[in-house]
Amino acid sequence: LINIERLMNTIEESAKIGQLEQGGIGRLALTDEDKSMRDLFVHWLESTGLTVRVDDFGNIYGRREGKNPKAAAVLIGSHLDTQPEGGRYDGILGVLSGFEVLKVLHENEIELERPIELVCFTNEEGARFEPPILGAGGLAGVFSQDFVFTRQDKDGKVFLDELKRIGYHGAKDHRADNIYSYLELHIEQGPVLEHEKLDIGVVTGIQGMNWLEVKVTGQADHAGPTPMNMRKDSLMAAAKMIIEIKETIKKHDSEATVTVGRLSLLPNSINCVPGEVVFSVDIRHSVDAVREHLLGLLKQKIGMIAATEQVELEMNQIWETPASHFSSELIQCISESAEQLGYSHQQMISGAGHDAKYINEMAPTAMIFVPSVDGKSHCQEEFTRQEAIEKGANVLLNVVRKLAI
Amino acid sequence: LINIERLMNTIEESAKIGQLEQGGIGRLALTDEDKSMRDLFVHWLESTGLTVRVDDFGNIYGRREGKNPKAAAVLIGSHLDTQPEGGRYDGILGVLSGFEVLKVLHENEIELERPIELVCFTNEEGARFEPPILGAGGLAGVFSQDFVFTRQDKDGKVFLDELKRIGYHGAKDHRADNIYSYLELHIEQGPVLEHEKLDIGVVTGIQGMNWLEVKVTGQADHAGPTPMNMRKDSLMAAAKMIIEIKETIKKHDSEATVTVGRLSLLPNSINCVPGEVVFSVDIRHSVDAVREHLLGLLKQKIGMIAATEQVELEMNQIWETPASHFSSELIQCISESAEQLGYSHQQMISGAGHDAKYINEMAPTAMIFVPSVDGKSHCQEEFTRQEAIEKGANVLLNVVRKLAI
Ligand SMILES: NC(=O)NCCC(=O)O
Ligand SMILES: NC(=O)NCCC(=O)O
Repeated sequence: LINIERLMNTIEESAKIGQLEQGGIGRLALTDEDKSMRDLFVHWLESTGLTVRVDDFGNIYGRREGKNPKAAAVLIGSHLDTQPEGGRYDGILGVLSGFEVLKVLHENEIELERPIELVCFTNEEGARFEPPILGAGGLAGVFSQDFVFTRQDKDGKVFLDELKRIGYHGAKDHRADNIYSYLELHIEQGPVLEHEKLDIGVVTGIQGMNWLEVKVTGQADHAGPTPMNMRKDSLMAAAKMIIEIKETIKKHDSEATVTVGRLSLLPNSINCVPGEVVFSVDIRHSVDAVREHLLGLLKQKIGMIAATEQVELEMNQIWETPASHFSSELIQCISESAEQLGYSHQQMISGAGHDAKYINEMAPTAMIFVPSVDGKSHCQEEFTRQEAIEKGANVLLNVVRKLAI
Repeated sequence: LINIERLMNTIEESAKIGQLEQGGIGRLALTDEDKSMRDLFVHWLESTGLTVRVDDFGNIYGRREGKNPKAAAVLIGSHLDTQPEGGRYDGILGVLSGFEVLKVLHENEIELERPIELVCFTNEEGARFEPPILGAGGLAGVFSQDFVFTRQDKDGKVFLDELKRIGYHGAKDHRADNIYSYLELHIEQGPVLEHEKLDIGVVTGIQGMNWLEVKVTGQADHAGPTPMNMRKDSLMAAAKMIIEIKETIKKHDSEATVTVGRLSLLPNSINCVPGEVVFSVDIRHSVDAVREHLLGLLKQKIGMIAATEQVELEMNQIWETPASHFSSELIQCISESAEQLGYSHQQMISGAGHDAKYINEMAPTAMIFVPSVDGKSHCQEEFTRQEAIEKGANVLLNVVRKLAI
């Protein structure tokens, strides 16, 4: 079994890097905070005798050899970057529980057939560089190297420049290439497990998602002498679109979600009628056909409002990913481990994207969820109880031992 | 008469400082661009033999002595700061036309009874430091010195620090204190003069205005696993408020204007339900009782939406100024000058705030408007024709000569 005190200590150490006032973490990908966390992580890996590599996307691996060094590796991990105001477990739990699993194997001198690789993927959140899951997507070949390297943040800073700046641009031949299976422990980030009073979620797949960027162009004008009926107010048009988007989704489907998470105005001055508004749309559903239908509907509604409000409209897709379905063998294996350990469990679909989404494209993959208090995440209030963490990490250990034999 | 080529040249020189791609100017108060413009302006004043002073608010004066140096001065001017994406005439026209008037008097060796002071006021736009008209308001005693000095911009930079940084924190006893009258030539910034095919607007006063800041607090959450019916989406609530504000005003009064010009989200991340939205409300009307009634109505509507959307609400007033009524003698004097020069003219009220609004509290004040093409301003498209500028500057010259004798 895992050592929960030790695991909680490493989580505590991580939470100091980029710590925010209300207890959360702000550690956007490839910032100075991310660098500090990576440096600490590499130090931890090395002092536990693991062999460290960094690939061209900045994904960090810590490898433990197997009795058969040629055997395909069991990969475990997640990410250490966070939202601008994120929690202390999102992603971090998967990486640091994986680290704890390796320590347990190490201190008990357990030799296994297969190598085990612990991985920390780059820019999973997508909060700094869009789209999310860039490091895992690059590894899986879903995104080309050029695509990943040229992503820009809001200030125009380029992914590759920032990766080099923090010293984590490694070698292409350091990418994981012989993967037997990938396992990711993660917080649920939703309300289901808590509501159903369950210990473990056995994740069977991940919803499909689209990200759009909508640009509404009206006419900047003076807030005083410009009569109301002579304005082309881009914010008024955008406000109508935002409400219509939500109403449409709520009316048509009870499972679908839609979110406008970022929005900016030009010139954004108190006495100027806004000339331009840019906002994002995030839409998700577990059934691709439903998602695609709803997306079409949203675009149509947005277009109609643009026409009646007489503003110009541009819509660009930033990201699309269909629903993912995980390996049934691994799903089975996780259920059995939870059962053996006496933990209550249930199969479920993830509403959040994860590194597992793209690694699933290259190797058998599945995920283990533990309950989030009040279902909260992507906020400083995100919390997961110690008992829940302990159970999740024990399932991870149990499954790893079965897979690596 | 004024020399229009010379005046257009100085306007052209000014437009190079903070020039934007589409021909407009970005020269926010107390930035490096503002400093460059001030340095050039001071250089111009000195090389025309004017005595330069800077007061504690950074207002710059260029003084021409009168035959009677003890006589109260005729003050003319406006401002040289702009919106983030402003035009090349807003404020600038008043300062540089005043400068042209002084040059005409100078080259013709015309000696007048009264001193004339040309003034450039600090932070008229309010786009960087809120509220607007800070320099003129400080001079008129509408704002205390402490209030002006402690204003902060969006990044928390403080007015006095920035004023010192650019080297324009002058002496309190340099404030203009013996003012016979204040005259300000300005672009109309609205569509009336152009629509009525008039040369000159004789401004009788300025609308009353309120600026509010509205803060809507919901709950940040993950855009994926958080079901639509469990969200407290602050942007959805804000969007409803923004639409309701506009509909309410349009329904109740045809003259009133309301604008939401700046808005920001927290955490402003594409896959986060927005936890907090802060937006501004600018409301204006020429009748104070109507404005106050409408403001009450808006606050009530905003409060009702906050209640139904179950978000927390904070509303703070940033600025309030009642309607201003200018000196009837000066209004008369401007009408007569326009008449003598053969320019068509009409009395009108200003929908925009101006330095004249506050100087009117300490001395007889009036304004001269010239037409804005398409009524546009606070945008790069702002434009005023050369013929219009020439007429406006000639009226200014004519009135100054009458007042200073
Ligand atoms: N787990 C997680 O929060 N991932 C970010 C990508 C997403 O938006 O789902
Ligand atoms: N003239 C001008 O644009 N002043 C800014 C203050 C206002 O918002 O009216």
